[in-house]
Amino acid sequence: MTDIAPDTTGWSCPAPLRDHPVVVMGHGGGGALSAELTRHLFLPAYGGETLDALMDSAAVELGSSRLAFSTDSYVVRPLFFPGGGIGDLAVNGTVNDLAMSGAVPRYLSCAFILEEGTELSTVGRVARALGAAARAADVTVVTGDTKVVDSGHGDGVYVTTAGIGLIPRGVDIRPQRALPGDVVIVSGPIGQHGIAILSVREGLTFGTEVRSDTAPLSGLVQAMLAVTPDIHALRDPTRGGLAAAVNEIATASEVGVVLDEGAVPVPDAVATACALLGLDPMYVANEGRLVAFVPRSHAEAVLEAMRAHPAGGGAAVIGECVVDHPAVVVARTVLGGTRIVDLPLGEQLPRIC
Amino acid sequence: MTDIAPDTTGWSCPAPLRDHPVVVMGHGGGGALSAELTRHLFLPAYGGETLDALMDSAAVELGSSRLAFSTDSYVVRPLFFPGGGIGDLAVNGTVNDLAMSGAVPRYLSCAFILEEGTELSTVGRVARALGAAARAADVTVVTGDTKVVDSGHGDGVYVTTAGIGLIPRGVDIRPQRALPGDVVIVSGPIGQHGIAILSVREGLTFGTEVRSDTAPLSGLVQAMLAVTPDIHALRDPTRGGLAAAVNEIATASEVGVVLDEGAVPVPDAVATACALLGLDPMYVANEGRLVAFVPRSHAEAVLEAMRAHPAGGGAAVIGECVVDHPAVVVARTVLGGTRIVDLPLGEQLPRIC
Repeated sequence: MTDIAPDTTGWSCPAPLRDHPVVVMGHGGGGALSAELTRHLFLPAYGGETLDALMDSAAVELGSSRLAFSTDSYVVRPLFFPGGGIGDLAVNGTVNDLAMSGAVPRYLSCAFILEEGTELSTVGRVARALGAAARAADVTVVTGDTKVVDSGHGDGVYVTTAGIGLIPRGVDIRPQRALPGDVVIVSGPIGQHGIAILSVREGLTFGTEVRSDTAPLSGLVQAMLAVTPDIHALRDPTRGGLAAAVNEIATASEVGVVLDEGAVPVPDAVATACALLGLDPMYVANEGRLVAFVPRSHAEAVLEAMRAHPAGGGAAVIGECVVDHPAVVVARTVLGGTRIVDLPLGEQLPRIC
Repeated sequence: MTDIAPDTTGWSCPAPLRDHPVVVMGHGGGGALSAELTRHLFLPAYGGETLDALMDSAAVELGSSRLAFSTDSYVVRPLFFPGGGIGDLAVNGTVNDLAMSGAVPRYLSCAFILEEGTELSTVGRVARALGAAARAADVTVVTGDTKVVDSGHGDGVYVTTAGIGLIPRGVDIRPQRALPGDVVIVSGPIGQHGIAILSVREGLTFGTEVRSDTAPLSGLVQAMLAVTPDIHALRDPTRGGLAAAVNEIATASEVGVVLDEGAVPVPDAVATACALLGLDPMYVANEGRLVAFVPRSHAEAVLEAMRAHPAGGGAAVIGECVVDHPAVVVARTVLGGTRIVDLPLGEQLPRIC
C-alpha cells in the first residue's frame, strides 16, 4: 500500500498553545487543541507515567487488584435530547471509558454542580435517568457531592462522574498495542449522538428523528474478551468522532491505518444531516460505539460475538493497520481515491457530552 | 448530664424539599438543605446501601482489596486566596475525605470545567498548585478530563476530583461507630479557611491575615491509627464547620455529644472576624482539620500522637459522647450555660470550596 502513503515530512503542529492565551471552545473538543492543552499544560503540572499514557481510563495497581479508574465531566446542552440526557451520558460515558481498558465497571462517584434557580424537578429527572442508566450498566453509585453556584454561572446541571472497575487478569488493552495486520472494527453505525444533539439544539429535522446512541459498552467488551483476551486496542469515539479515536490509536501505536470509507456504517439520516450541514460523519460524536483493533486471526470470531450482542448488532470491519505511513490514518474513498483522515483541531459541535 | 438534655419532642424538620421548588444556594452548603436534597432526591433516584451510608468516602470491596472512593466538585471563588487556591483544595479535600475512612489515599482523577475566555495562565496556575498539592499528599493524578463551556457559563475554573485509597485491614472508621464515653478531639484551630475566603472576597482585614488551613490529613490519620486501629469516627469539618461534622456523627451513631465551648481552639483573628460579622466559628468551614471520636482508653495516646504530627500540632479535646439526648449536640458555654449546636440550614458563606 505504499502508493497511498502520504509524505508527512515537514508537517507542522497546528496551533501551538502560545497562540491561544485564553481558553477557547476547541480546548474541550477532544481534538488537537485538547491534546495540546493536556500535553503542554496539565502533564507538566501533575503528570506521571500513568496519566501520560492518556488512556480513556487509567490502569492502576491497588492492593492485589488491577483497577481501571476514569472520570468525565458532562456539560451537554440541552440536558435532555432524543435518545437520552445528561444523566445517561454521565453513566455510560464513564462506564465506557472503563470498558475500553477491558475492565468490568463496578462503582461510580457522582458530583453535581447545580445552578441556583434550577427547577428541582429538572434535577430529579437527571438523577432518575442516572439511576436507571447505572442499573442498566450494572454499576453502583457509591459516593457523591453537590455544589450550588450562583444564578448566571454554571448552566443548570453539570455532572462529573468517576468510575472504578476491575481489569481481568491477562487483559492488556492499550492504544499503544495496535500492530500492522490488525483489523479495525466499529461496533455500529456512527454519528447519531452528535446529530441528535444538533437537531434538538437547532430545531432541525432530517426526515426521520436521529436519536443518541448512548449505551453502556461493558457487556459488549466482555463478550469480545470471551472470544480472546488478546484484543489490542479499544476506544469509544466520543468527542472528535471515529477520526479522533482512530488517530489516537495510530499515533500511540505508531502504525498506519487504512480505512475503507464505504464500509463505515452511517445511517441515512446522519448522512443527510451531515451533507446539509457540511459535517463529516467521521468527526461526529458517538456515545454508544467502540472501535476495536483486533489481531487478524481473531477478527472474524470477535466480529461474530459483537454482532450477537445487543450493543454490537451493527458491527462492521472498516479497515486495517499497515506498516506504511506510521501514525497516519488514510481513507479509501468510495470513488477509489484516498484522503488523509486527520485529528480534528477542535470539535464540530460544542458541548455535546 | 440529664440536666442539660433538651426536650426534642415535637421538633419538626426544617424546610422540607417541597417548599423549595428550585435550587437555592443552601442546597450546596453542607447543612440541612444539602442533606434533604440528598435524602429526598438523590438517594431515591440512585441510592444503595453504600451511598445511603453518606460517608465522606465510600468503602467498597474490589477484587481482594477494600477501597475508599470519594469525589468532590470545587467551585470556590476567588480561585486563589491567602494560604491556597482551588488547586490545593481539589487535592486536599478529596484526600481528606478518603483519610476519614482511615484509607491511605493513592490515586486521583481530575476533571476541569473551563469557561471560554479564561486566561490559560490562570489554568496553568491552578494546575501547578494541584500538582504540588498531590506531591505533598503523596497521591498521583492518573486520569482526567477537560470540558469547556461558553463564556458567561461556568466561572473560570471548576475542578472535580475523585480519589481512591486502600483501607488497611482491621480499620473500620464510620460515623455510625461513635459510642457514649468516646472523647471528641479536634486536630487544630478552627474557622481559618472560611474567614480567609471571606476576607479576600469582601476586602476585609481583621488585624492579622487569616490564611486557609488547607492541608492533607492522611498522614495525621495514619499516625493516629498507629496508636490504635480502634478509632471510631472521623470527619473533616468543611462546609457547615465543626457543628455540621459533629452533628452528622451524633445523628449517625445516635449518641449525644457535649462540647466544651471554651476548649474549642479558635484563633484570635477568626474570633474577631466572627464577632464583627455575626458568624459562629463552629459553623465556619475548615479544609485542614479533622474531628475524631476516640474510645476514652486510647484518647490520651491518640492526642499525643496528633500533637507530634505537623498537621495536628494544635489538637485539643473538645468534648465527649453521652447516653443522654441521643443525636443531639450541646455546648457548655464559657459562662456555664448550655446551648444546642444544631445542623446549619444552609451555610454562612457560599462557594467556599
